[in-house]
Amino acid sequence: MTRERAKQLAEELVGRMTAEEKAGQLRFDAPAIERLGIPAYNWWNEALHGLARGGTATSFPQAIGLAAMFDEELLEQIASAAGDEARAKYNAVSREGDRDIYHGLTMWSPNVNIFRDPRWGRGQETYGEDPFLTARLGRAFVRGLQGKGGTLKTSACAKHFAGHSGPEALRHSFDAQISEKDLEETYLPAFRALVDEGVESVMGAYNRLNGEPCCASSYLMGKLRGDWGFEGHFVSDCWAIRDFHESHGVTAAPAESVQLALRSGCDLNCGCTYQHILHAMELGMIDEADVTRSAVRLFTTRFLLGTLGDEGSEYDALPYETIECPAHLALAQKAARESCVLLKNNGLLPLDPASCGTIGVIGPNADSRAALVGNYHGTASRYVTVLQGIQDFVGERCRVLYSQGCALCADRVEPLALPDDRLAEASAVAKASDTVILVLGLDETLEGEEGDTGNSYSSGDKEDLLLPESQRRLLERVLAVGKPTVVLLLAGSAIDLSAAQERADAVLLGWYPGAGGGRAVAELLFGAVSPSGKLPVTFYRNEALAELPAFTDYSLTGRTYRYYQGEPLYPFGYGLSYGACAVTGLTADRTLARVTVRNGGARDTEEVLQLYLRDEASPFAPPNPVLCGFRRVFLAAGEEKSLSVPLGEQAFTVVNDAGEHVPGSGRWTLYAGFGGPDARTEALTGRKALSVPIRSTP
Amino acid sequence: MTRERAKQLAEELVGRMTAEEKAGQLRFDAPAIERLGIPAYNWWNEALHGLARGGTATSFPQAIGLAAMFDEELLEQIASAAGDEARAKYNAVSREGDRDIYHGLTMWSPNVNIFRDPRWGRGQETYGEDPFLTARLGRAFVRGLQGKGGTLKTSACAKHFAGHSGPEALRHSFDAQISEKDLEETYLPAFRALVDEGVESVMGAYNRLNGEPCCASSYLMGKLRGDWGFEGHFVSDCWAIRDFHESHGVTAAPAESVQLALRSGCDLNCGCTYQHILHAMELGMIDEADVTRSAVRLFTTRFLLGTLGDEGSEYDALPYETIECPAHLALAQKAARESCVLLKNNGLLPLDPASCGTIGVIGPNADSRAALVGNYHGTASRYVTVLQGIQDFVGERCRVLYSQGCALCADRVEPLALPDDRLAEASAVAKASDTVILVLGLDETLEGEEGDTGNSYSSGDKEDLLLPESQRRLLERVLAVGKPTVVLLLAGSAIDLSAAQERADAVLLGWYPGAGGGRAVAELLFGAVSPSGKLPVTFYRNEALAELPAFTDYSLTGRTYRYYQGEPLYPFGYGLSYGACAVTGLTADRTLARVTVRNGGARDTEEVLQLYLRDEASPFAPPNPVLCGFRRVFLAAGEEKSLSVPLGEQAFTVVNDAGEHVPGSGRWTLYAGFGGPDARTEALTGRKALSVPIRSTP
Repeated sequence: MTRERAKQLAEELVGRMTAEEKAGQLRFDAPAIERLGIPAYNWWNEALHGLARGGTATSFPQAIGLAAMFDEELLEQIASAAGDEARAKYNAVSREGDRDIYHGLTMWSPNVNIFRDPRWGRGQETYGEDPFLTARLGRAFVRGLQGKGGTLKTSACAKHFAGHSGPEALRHSFDAQISEKDLEETYLPAFRALVDEGVESVMGAYNRLNGEPCCASSYLMGKLRGDWGFEGHFVSDCWAIRDFHESHGVTAAPAESVQLALRSGCDLNCGCTYQHILHAMELGMIDEADVTRSAVRLFTTRFLLGTLGDEGSEYDALPYETIECPAHLALAQKAARESCVLLKNNGLLPLDPASCGTIGVIGPNADSRAALVGNYHGTASRYVTVLQGIQDFVGERCRVLYSQGCALCADRVEPLALPDDRLAEASAVAKASDTVILVLGLDETLEGEEGDTGNSYSSGDKEDLLLPESQRRLLERVLAVGKPTVVLLLAGSAIDLSAAQERADAVLLGWYPGAGGGRAVAELLFGAVSPSGKLPVTFYRNEALAELPAFTDYSLTGRTYRYYQGEPLYPFGYGLSYGACAVTGLTADRTLARVTVRNGGARDTEEVLQLYLRDEASPFAPPNPVLCGFRRVFLAAGEEKSLSVPLGEQAFTVVNDAGEHVPGSGRWTLYAGFGGPDARTEALTGRKALSVPIRSTP
Repeated sequence: MTRERAKQLAEELVGRMTAEEKAGQLRFDAPAIERLGIPAYNWWNEALHGLARGGTATSFPQAIGLAAMFDEELLEQIASAAGDEARAKYNAVSREGDRDIYHGLTMWSPNVNIFRDPRWGRGQETYGEDPFLTARLGRAFVRGLQGKGGTLKTSACAKHFAGHSGPEALRHSFDAQISEKDLEETYLPAFRALVDEGVESVMGAYNRLNGEPCCASSYLMGKLRGDWGFEGHFVSDCWAIRDFHESHGVTAAPAESVQLALRSGCDLNCGCTYQHILHAMELGMIDEADVTRSAVRLFTTRFLLGTLGDEGSEYDALPYETIECPAHLALAQKAARESCVLLKNNGLLPLDPASCGTIGVIGPNADSRAALVGNYHGTASRYVTVLQGIQDFVGERCRVLYSQGCALCADRVEPLALPDDRLAEASAVAKASDTVILVLGLDETLEGEEGDTGNSYSSGDKEDLLLPESQRRLLERVLAVGKPTVVLLLAGSAIDLSAAQERADAVLLGWYPGAGGGRAVAELLFGAVSPSGKLPVTFYRNEALAELPAFTDYSLTGRTYRYYQGEPLYPFGYGLSYGACAVTGLTADRTLARVTVRNGGARDTEEVLQLYLRDEASPFAPPNPVLCGFRRVFLAAGEEKSLSVPLGEQAFTVVNDAGEHVPGSGRWTLYAGFGGPDARTEALTGRKALSVPIRSTP
């Protein structure tokens, strides 16, 4: 089904509707129009890391963990699997007459906002802090969700357009002030890339951008439908149009908000404000043509999905059993393996299951299901916590002792007990163990979305980069016992792990690894697989918050690895493996880098080759080298490989203050390594990135 | 350590205390007296079905499920294991300086109240509705907890003394009016039996009994310390002494409550009212001797535990690894197997894992951890939900599909969805399956203790015997699909399962089977083990609530299997197996019954032989035969065994209106069967209990 044909069908169908009927179709919970054979349809569905909120589905690692894989192919497969499951669920439940929320084919994923500030609670939903990585991964995700069939498998959605990254507490009234340069260099590239990829939908953000609410921004709409040629439909974030009059104050009443949003090109209202469409028409504030235009766009999507008309979709036959089929569960397992990042290892890891004696597994996230799934999650039919994963992996070979150690974020577990009521047990377990695995971190009650989380004190954002105090006390107590100790962090954002880095033997970051993630974590701890994930965000030290711009300041100056001038705890792109891989050769021109890589170690591993570019002289260049290419590669012990990585033309541009891509100074340095070319990576890994100069005509 | 010697040491030690020091020792959180080398000690610990609230511990089936085993030996082993774990935990954490609540050796278990009304939320904590069974099981539990060593392993506690069984909402002000006959015949026998067993502690109930608050009842104390010769210590239920002046109104102020409780013989205050002891002394309302008396009793217990003085205890060496050791986990597994009750089977069970195709596991309790553990639970290091148990059991042999089906007790799972938002998925799963296992029931948020549960509408009690409406709708929807269906109930009390009994192929009751219970459930479903649990309570139909006495009426008339004249859905003592066992011979005299039993089926099984007695003519006899003996027995396929079951002398008495045990008419009928001798059991099992007349001299 071509867009042209779908649009024609949509125009024909919408042409038969009354104004009232059309208006109703612009609500996210569009009612049936029985006389036209149109079933009810709820546009709201989610697939951030697997189908969310709509029942049983394969659970993949949270988006930030998917980013840490640096693996476009696997990400596309994952999104494709989620799309298949959405179809299978839709097929099954719509046959049961269920047309409810979270059961449709229009997925409001991925989230391609930039993880600008480490406190942002929704940063876990993103692909991290780098615009290049975010764009590449976002495109892969859209390809997977939308498929390559004659109809869309599902429709993807680029959200939240644009400049949306906290604070959550302010989002309904916030005005993000962002320069043209920062927009073009950092905040917009991923959206542009997703439009290029053919994303069927874009969601406007809650906040204002330079004064205009994002769901009705002439600037953003001009880019989107003008410069970029976006032809799909535009949806508001949920109840964001109500914010126009209730919080932003850019309009005075619902009808005005309708007028502003609809005339700006916001086709679909997640929320209830478009119930005022007819009233706005009566007042002459909008025309029926405004409504028709959006209705046609929406029905174009429905025809592209093959859910209207007689032709159907090639996906109509996907059976219910597609959901959580073995192939999808295997993808989730592979993703969990690739997403974990080894941050420190003094040689304790991998543990030997044949001689591990007694293992003490301690900590509030050790047996937590919530810590497996982050936010925007579905329901899995099997959760494997870290504790269970370890128990299953070692079987009868080791005794596993467990202590919760402390509450996730409270001074005691039992209300009637004294503070720290599990610390004695944790200490006792550590003393009775040969090795300790201490599982700390957060879950969606501590970081997430405004209104969703339990940490109402900061509406889902973190106040700082420290672990909750209960966990800091537990870490202290367990480290004091002095046993060989691995600290495992399950969280979706940067946490200051200085104490663990200094005093634990190993530190592993599991993100929120998906419902079965404990199995992958155990495989990594015991060396069945070598860690290979890389940080898609900078792990700052907590003190750095004093140096970073205010949370409300959207300037990139001093933020993210491209602009941060301090020393991070763990830098962007960083992650260890059990191999000993190095880049041993690098040549490049403006189109291609040729790289030789070698695993000089005794263990097979995957690695992520990373290429960074720096314009050595342009005043518009970020101070630090910028990611311009990456490639996940398998290297057996002792193996050497030659890789070619294409370099995009835009890599050799810089963005001036007017937001224009310009050639820069022409004197570039290209770096290749298994991490960034920064001093901290060098210190942590003992290896320097190779570099080579490249000249381009300015 | 003899009680005499312990008491001597206690008197000596208490004799060295000031009045202030003594008064402090009557609080449950007794402070240290450093000058006397007495460490702080918190008396409050729980071990209802494994150590509770104090961290990691082996999780056994909830007490009501332990009762369904009808297995004194196993119950004693379980209590002994819990006692060992309490010692191991105490040893480890007290070395860490932790003397906090839930870490001590004075266990406030078991709960030997009679499960009088099926709505009572705490009925799950009891051994059911029969005084004989409760007494026998309670004794076994006390033996296990207290051990046979030179020191007490832990101290057990007979609670809640007496006549305590709801309504929870009223408990702080309620006056239970109970006749002498009902007290002697029903409410007191278990307490008496536990005192005979040497229980070290008794806890007073919240309510009043015939006008007197149970923690200061001259009637109850007279029985306890007078008639029965109880020598241990008496503890108030928590904040129950405050209820004297705040709710019961039997005193006007805290000092009066202190006077009443202490003078009545309540030694230990769970709560804070005994902070007024010194004030009451100043007012002359109590003497120092009153305080001394209780302090001596309390320190006697501490010496009996071997926690004071130089001698120590033989349990001091129990290492931390005792907790959840393989032997204890095996006990829990065995208990879960024995506790489940098969209520219906048209031949669908056991399922054949070799040919089970696709199994649909559906329902809000299918993957619930909370539904494994009931209330008063510890933390397990491994939870095996029913879903996981089934997945693990079938492995690669079958595909397992899962749907939550509905919320436990809400009309939708997702707040933004329409009602019944998982029913379509459940129906789709059922349609895609060859067999459906539907897991329904309750958890501690729906039945439990006042103040603890989520169902504030009835303070922990059930309003009726129906499943929550969401689950009734799910049951209806799934049954309508028409696949072979097993209904599995996880709950701690009687639920009207009429719809399942009529229309499902099999009905299994799992109670709250303990953290690893899903494994046992799967073994039963797939026939690795035959079900053998028996109901320790009557499962009434919901309509019966209209016939039963009011919830607040403590008269037995018309209540429990001994007095209920209607037809229950499932009677007391009932439970099917995969064998085909029958009692084939019965002879008896007044001291011994000789019974021949035979398994005529093709599968090995355990069974519970039950003996019931009826006085055929006494006006004081309950209308129905009364349990007077039981024996769990293994019967291989085809096996026949002869068993001797002793009959206690008291079995041949009845209780007159003055509460005296009298001989009765002397014309008795003894019944023997694998269930009760009632018509409903006969209808459900197709077998009649054998009977034999016994004459006794009136």
